[in-house]
Amino acid sequence: MAMATTSSKPMREQVEEFISKLQEDIVSALEKLDPNAPAFKRDDWLRAQGGRGLSCVFAVPDPSVSEAAATAQNSVLEKAGVNISIVHGILPPPAVKQMRADHGSMKDLEGSLPFFAAGISLIVHPRNPHAPTVHVNYRYFEITEPVPEGSQEKGKIVAWWFGGGGDLTPSYLYEEDAKHFHATHKAACDPHGAAVYPTFKKWCDEYFVIKHRGESRGIGGMFFDDLCDEPHKRFLEAGGEEANAQRPHTPETIFAMIKDLGNAFLPSYMPILERRIHTPSDARARRWQLLRRGRYVEFNLVYDRGTRFGLLTPGARIESVLISLPETARWEYGSELGSEEGSEEARLMEVLKNPRDWV
Amino acid sequence: MAMATTSSKPMREQVEEFISKLQEDIVSALEKLDPNAPAFKRDDWLRAQGGRGLSCVFAVPDPSVSEAAATAQNSVLEKAGVNISIVHGILPPPAVKQMRADHGSMKDLEGSLPFFAAGISLIVHPRNPHAPTVHVNYRYFEITEPVPEGSQEKGKIVAWWFGGGGDLTPSYLYEEDAKHFHATHKAACDPHGAAVYPTFKKWCDEYFVIKHRGESRGIGGMFFDDLCDEPHKRFLEAGGEEANAQRPHTPETIFAMIKDLGNAFLPSYMPILERRIHTPSDARARRWQLLRRGRYVEFNLVYDRGTRFGLLTPGARIESVLISLPETARWEYGSELGSEEGSEEARLMEVLKNPRDWV
Repeated sequence: MAMATTSSKPMREQVEEFISKLQEDIVSALEKLDPNAPAFKRDDWLRAQGGRGLSCVFAVPDPSVSEAAATAQNSVLEKAGVNISIVHGILPPPAVKQMRADHGSMKDLEGSLPFFAAGISLIVHPRNPHAPTVHVNYRYFEITEPVPEGSQEKGKIVAWWFGGGGDLTPSYLYEEDAKHFHATHKAACDPHGAAVYPTFKKWCDEYFVIKHRGESRGIGGMFFDDLCDEPHKRFLEAGGEEANAQRPHTPETIFAMIKDLGNAFLPSYMPILERRIHTPSDARARRWQLLRRGRYVEFNLVYDRGTRFGLLTPGARIESVLISLPETARWEYGSELGSEEGSEEARLMEVLKNPRDWV
Repeated sequence: MAMATTSSKPMREQVEEFISKLQEDIVSALEKLDPNAPAFKRDDWLRAQGGRGLSCVFAVPDPSVSEAAATAQNSVLEKAGVNISIVHGILPPPAVKQMRADHGSMKDLEGSLPFFAAGISLIVHPRNPHAPTVHVNYRYFEITEPVPEGSQEKGKIVAWWFGGGGDLTPSYLYEEDAKHFHATHKAACDPHGAAVYPTFKKWCDEYFVIKHRGESRGIGGMFFDDLCDEPHKRFLEAGGEEANAQRPHTPETIFAMIKDLGNAFLPSYMPILERRIHTPSDARARRWQLLRRGRYVEFNLVYDRGTRFGLLTPGARIESVLISLPETARWEYGSELGSEEGSEEARLMEVLKNPRDWV
């Protein structure tokens, strides 16, 4: 769909169209890669307080926990979720207050305010320990003026912003994979300003840290939030007024970047997945993968803002919030895996403890 | 060791002696139950900032993740930890401030203060899905007046309290097990005041709740904290001045109760473990057990105060903090297990959603 035909529509509709199409593209690419595996389950849902969503979920049906049986099924993916949600409602005063801190345009607003949020969120946990887990999320947020109850009018937009990112979590380090993932995202960022990729890359390295372990969740990617027409602290820190001036500022130019980033997902990840799914593996590699999945659970339940926000929100759809958790995870006391000098596991740990520039 | 011979010692030494002996008793009973399994690993550690600990950990060495191999090894336990720690140091001002809220005797104290903490903490995850997980923790805390640097003196005790509890987490409900666990703890509580068991039981039901699931972690037990000579809110709520007056108030009488509770662990749990470890099981039961272990992980990482305090404390011994996590846990999107009417899994869920009185 060419941008010209959609640009006259309200942004919330443009975003809904884009994430719906992107979700279809991604699910269909993942299904095509593994035609013998079961299809993704499409799970439509409505939100009582307003809005809808579509969860597309991959799991091997009625799985036994027997590793032998699982291997026999031999699917490329072990668990995956590609979700969109388009919801609206009323933000309570404490949430409004918190958002005011990041959005100058909200500075005179108090009390409850209507919000709209649309986003796509995906997680892919492949079965082969040599194929990395990937996570991607793009979202659009609007706060509007209150309108009289029962009115069909939409209030004036008083604040809006985009957020998102994508990051790669391998159990074994393949430098070419890390370079490819970062380079593809950098190429999508660069037309939108030279400061974009470095700013988002650094933010990602700082965000996905399992603080109590002193290690990153994975080899990074991009992370950003609160991107709108107001001055952005991260760009000001990264390159001063100039960096902030050069990055996109309008809804249309930021959305154009979001589309380029969203469309970069398949080219950033599918080649990696395709070249790792047949890598020979053994019980040690599987054990290490499950230990790393345990770390993934630790990050998501202890630190991830989206997950914790979801868990603490009454009425949130918990199955969708926790779709990011792996099918299986493992914890060992003082495991030797990861600390044996010269091992492949230790080589990954080195990078998780000292994030690198990949492009 | 008779109480008379130890009562002249400072409480911190009495507690250290008691938890050391209790740890030995418990580890040795678990080892005797399964003489063909590997022994617990004894892991002594020193805390740089002051103090020591001993972690006794059970795990099958170098395990494959193959279920077949694990079953072949056939140990009663899958993962277990029985830990003691006896540590001291300086509490920073924010921690002192937080403790002031619960301890009137600290109301005029500000800044940093020396603390001493000794406790035993145990978790047992048996392999058989019909044998329940158990968790127990007893601890003693002291805050003292500051002493000049380098002084060998111990400052005057300005606040002290005991805390602890024990709770049972089955994957399948056996009412006789729930009754036995509660009845054994009630019998240990009752000599110390009629209000003790009901107060601790209710507190436990309120504490071990996975709020985002609207379900309890398990079938409860006892939970308590901040037990000292000051009026205790929970007892006042449970039965007014009379209930608060009847429960133990002095270090000696509270410690006598702690000893009775600690010593009740083996009789409360071992008979249950012994009668469930040979129950025939299948892949469905194992899958359900692993899903319930996923819920255990959710509670511990999202809500458990001790775990979160440990994760957020710089320099904490993460391996000991996270020993409570199961060896393996599982997450499914919209699993049918637990919601099929009339199933054994649904029978457990009913009790987790509506906690019951067991004695």
